[in-house]
Amino acid sequence: MRISVIGSGSPSEEAAAHAREVGRLLAERGHTVVCGGLCGVMEAACRGAREEGGETIGILPTDRLADANPYVTTPIATGMGNARNVLVVLNGQGVIAVSGATGTLSELGHALDFGRPVAGLGTHELTLEGFEAVGTPEEAVESVERRVQGDAPHRQ
Amino acid sequence: MRISVIGSGSPSEEAAAHAREVGRLLAERGHTVVCGGLCGVMEAACRGAREEGGETIGILPTDRLADANPYVTTPIATGMGNARNVLVVLNGQGVIAVSGATGTLSELGHALDFGRPVAGLGTHELTLEGFEAVGTPEEAVESVERRVQGDAPHRQ
Amino acid sequence: MRISVIGSGSPSEEAAAHAREVGRLLAERGHTVVCGGLCGVMEAACRGAREEGGETIGILPTDRLADANPYVTTPIATGMGNARNVLVVLNGQGVIAVSGATGTLSELGHALDFGRPVAGLGTHELTLEGFEAVGTPEEAVESVERRVQGDAPHRQ
Amino acid sequence: MRISVIGSGSPSEEAAAHAREVGRLLAERGHTVVCGGLCGVMEAACRGAREEGGETIGILPTDRLADANPYVTTPIATGMGNARNVLVVLNGQGVIAVSGATGTLSELGHALDFGRPVAGLGTHELTLEGFEAVGTPEEAVESVERRVQGDAPHRQ
Repeated sequence: MRISVIGSGSPSEEAAAHAREVGRLLAERGHTVVCGGLCGVMEAACRGAREEGGETIGILPTDRLADANPYVTTPIATGMGNARNVLVVLNGQGVIAVSGATGTLSELGHALDFGRPVAGLGTHELTLEGFEAVGTPEEAVESVERRVQGDAPHRQ
Repeated sequence: MRISVIGSGSPSEEAAAHAREVGRLLAERGHTVVCGGLCGVMEAACRGAREEGGETIGILPTDRLADANPYVTTPIATGMGNARNVLVVLNGQGVIAVSGATGTLSELGHALDFGRPVAGLGTHELTLEGFEAVGTPEEAVESVERRVQGDAPHRQ
Repeated sequence: MRISVIGSGSPSEEAAAHAREVGRLLAERGHTVVCGGLCGVMEAACRGAREEGGETIGILPTDRLADANPYVTTPIATGMGNARNVLVVLNGQGVIAVSGATGTLSELGHALDFGRPVAGLGTHELTLEGFEAVGTPEEAVESVERRVQGDAPHRQ
Repeated sequence: MRISVIGSGSPSEEAAAHAREVGRLLAERGHTVVCGGLCGVMEAACRGAREEGGETIGILPTDRLADANPYVTTPIATGMGNARNVLVVLNGQGVIAVSGATGTLSELGHALDFGRPVAGLGTHELTLEGFEAVGTPEEAVESVERRVQGDAPHRQ
């Protein structure tokens, strides 16, 4: 399964620790982390995933693969700036948000618009269908795993 | 000045009336309406603007100009689906949201991410810098007019 | 009718004169010029169109309306870099290429891919269906006018 | 190294065989194939790469990972239609074109615009800097390997 992890580029220590643990748990269960490829929550989630040997896809706003954080195994350059946000959530079957400000809000909107199940850990509080507020990394992973429908969209 | 008007594609009667009045007021004051080009709030805002002889730009998710509502004077086709949402708010100097669900939420996030002043009329309640909840179309227009900074980015 | 004019950002004097004359002829016949919004052939075509009081749409690679050349009446910011090239030709019903290098080549490919009739004036020589090499601005305008099919896709 | 392989979605038998051999050679030398993710040359190149255990990235025009051909190991959905062409060539350090029509022409333009070295095998004949016509899959791979500058942009 592919899970997008979104959140602040400059998170609190607690949020960074949460993101790293989310990445670790996802990789442990065989899932691939999809993110925006840069620093903060994106880097922490990738780092956690790599510590468990997982795969990580980083969809970058810039046109340079070298801008990816060092824990991204498959960087994708777009050169599209913030317009790449929609691709970050489109490429996960579920989404976990850890903290986050306005960029994360745009991704939450796109994710719910695509019908993706979203778990929110210390992020914007939304009362929209498809959004579940959770209290721990474990609950976040459990929340999206439970709600991703049917089979994987791809044999990966 | 260019103002983006965002909101539901299937609004309540009240929201549609609000959007039409927003469009009318914007045109009356010489502003151009930017929107997603389709129905609902987008069409109502364009209709209001046209009633006052205003200009309207509709940035479409599809690749066909003919998909624009009949009150769009300048349709722009993108063929990019929801990824066009970011362009809708990028092309206004301020943003007025009337009602709206998940697509509108993504646009609110992008708008605040770009630093655009946003007025919300019966839409998502956000407690983010740059967002002002308002109660009437008049207040919505006044809110963004007051906060758009400095000169127009273009001689229009 | 909307016609996209594409070509070099740093054209020869002859190419710039051709582009300006193309813009003038298009406006004279009531057509709107669509272009990439920047300098060179784009600016010359817009300038010619404005001299006849025509409308011009500039679809910019950057996220700033102020980057448009002074003859653009409706700038559209994208922040998408070269990925905006596809939008330049998508938004015209026909395409006229005047000179041009690699960026123009990408636009020629996209234009023919969308089935747009293309007239080439001193540009890449292609032997693909839909492409006609012409020798003068008048022939360029005549070539696309003749081949744009059926009614306008929009009441403009 | 990452090499983008572009070409027709409905190639001749010879072109398909060439694309498969290109994929095989790239994987044998440890390179990752990047392509548009669909059928024809894209599928043949991925198939060849998989036969040698290589990695393949497919950047899709649609918003469904399931649209990728069965030999894509990392599908990326975009929902952006033809606007994704620019991403296909942006994500390779070099480009090999095998056959191809108008879509391929747009990718050739974008590739050269980004300064990517391009090898052409039975594709459009271009006389632009950066383009080398070659006669065999071996020559194609050798041509781009030789010209990709400096170090990989990413530790992959």
